[in-house]
Amino acid sequence: MFHTKIVPRISETDALGHINNTVLSVWFDEARRPIYEIFTPGLARENWCLIMARSEIDVVGQIFLGGDVGISTAIERLGSSSIIFAQEAEQGDRVVARSRATWVHFNFETQKPKPIPDDLRRRLNESDAFSNPETAT
Amino acid sequence: MFHTKIVPRISETDALGHINNTVLSVWFDEARRPIYEIFTPGLARENWCLIMARSEIDVVGQIFLGGDVGISTAIERLGSSSIIFAQEAEQGDRVVARSRATWVHFNFETQKPKPIPDDLRRRLNESDAFSNPETAT
Amino acid sequence: MFHTKIVPRISETDALGHINNTVLSVWFDEARRPIYEIFTPGLARENWCLIMARSEIDVVGQIFLGGDVGISTAIERLGSSSIIFAQEAEQGDRVVARSRATWVHFNFETQKPKPIPDDLRRRLNESDAFSNPETAT
Amino acid sequence: MFHTKIVPRISETDALGHINNTVLSVWFDEARRPIYEIFTPGLARENWCLIMARSEIDVVGQIFLGGDVGISTAIERLGSSSIIFAQEAEQGDRVVARSRATWVHFNFETQKPKPIPDDLRRRLNESDAFSNPETAT
Repeated sequence: MFHTKIVPRISETDALGHINNTVLSVWFDEARRPIYEIFTPGLARENWCLIMARSEIDVVGQIFLGGDVGISTAIERLGSSSIIFAQEAEQGDRVVARSRATWVHFNFETQKPKPIPDDLRRRLNESDAFSNPETAT
Repeated sequence: MFHTKIVPRISETDALGHINNTVLSVWFDEARRPIYEIFTPGLARENWCLIMARSEIDVVGQIFLGGDVGISTAIERLGSSSIIFAQEAEQGDRVVARSRATWVHFNFETQKPKPIPDDLRRRLNESDAFSNPETAT
Repeated sequence: MFHTKIVPRISETDALGHINNTVLSVWFDEARRPIYEIFTPGLARENWCLIMARSEIDVVGQIFLGGDVGISTAIERLGSSSIIFAQEAEQGDRVVARSRATWVHFNFETQKPKPIPDDLRRRLNESDAFSNPETAT
Repeated sequence: MFHTKIVPRISETDALGHINNTVLSVWFDEARRPIYEIFTPGLARENWCLIMARSEIDVVGQIFLGGDVGISTAIERLGSSSIIFAQEAEQGDRVVARSRATWVHFNFETQKPKPIPDDLRRRLNESDAFSNPETAT
């Protein structure tokens, strides 16, 4: 599991005085970044190989400006060419939002999903990408 | 059903050359606005009464800069205090994304959901908020 | 002179109830787009040839959610390889912001400014890019 | 002088592969935050008392995704009711952008500038808000 600290920005509040709901997708994306980096070292765009297929976000509590948000990110399931991320955002002691996102390992030239190769699975397994120490095969 | 035209912005592209996935939540939010206006005329923040509980977005195709995106928005289900929005985004002739979002009619003072009153249901029924002409009761 | 209509978005408001100041740079960028399109038809990234060197924005009035913003955009001065854009944003009858931005015609391979060629100057002159019908040479 | 670390976000890149120019205003705003907090402890919106009047941004170099950006922020001049911020952004060893922004100490009820009171000047002087240890009077 990876942990990312997000500092809410003034420009991310809305007229209601809390963080606008649309900002959550940016934060969760940012928190998936350590795992993107395993897929694409340096996030070099010529090697980029992931594409989002589905995003689910549950808002559990209102989020305010004055307090860091901590996001935990793990791979919940690794398919042959797909990845399901499970994430949770906390502010103070409260869980404020949860996310489940499906991404696909993708060949942008052929415009088709491509299998996640073994060396990548190994690198993911050696990282903190899985919440539990079980291997994903 | 409401129809909203979105002009993708250069700043919404990302290094891969298409619209970044995080932008979809902004666009779908913007496209729900005619219905927000029925709940809160003029979107006056002192009368604002809606809060997002859940968002699901399916990305069906890549979205590019050079072409308007049309989003259709309807209320799929109106509960006692909740609203489920169903939305679809098209670019050119292709469906590129779908959204289902659950919002709650909310009292920000008591921090509790509040029932959607009859006059609001009537205004929604008289509008184009429902895809089909069935009444929501 | 080009005219662009911007519909302020709910996500662009901030906790003070008006449009956050950081949004102005997005809107002014969007309003320069008809001129970007003259430089790079279709905004194809492989032909993109402009880079921002300087931006000045004066905020003259507060901007609110409930009303379209009209932005007028013109080239104020066309140098050998630089462009100065002058822009003005109005909401209702009020001018709310002004922008002056310097962009450079740029060769991304050599990482150097490159002269604006004659045929581009001609296309700009034949367009509405200049506020007054004077030619820029 | 205050120092703020910004981690560029994937969603902040654009189709050219670097950080979009519109993002700079968000980063510089975020970096002024320690000084906003001196004016409005906790950034409580009911006590918010600042409004942007003018922003100048010079882009000195291209900014990329793969490296933190450090922003230094200081008050360059403190007028009777205005503040001029001077800021510089670095990525790696390179200065990539500079900002000068004018803000006004503002009474949102009367919609007029209001003098910066002595106790606030004292708090600013006791902070790191000025680049040099000279007092601002």
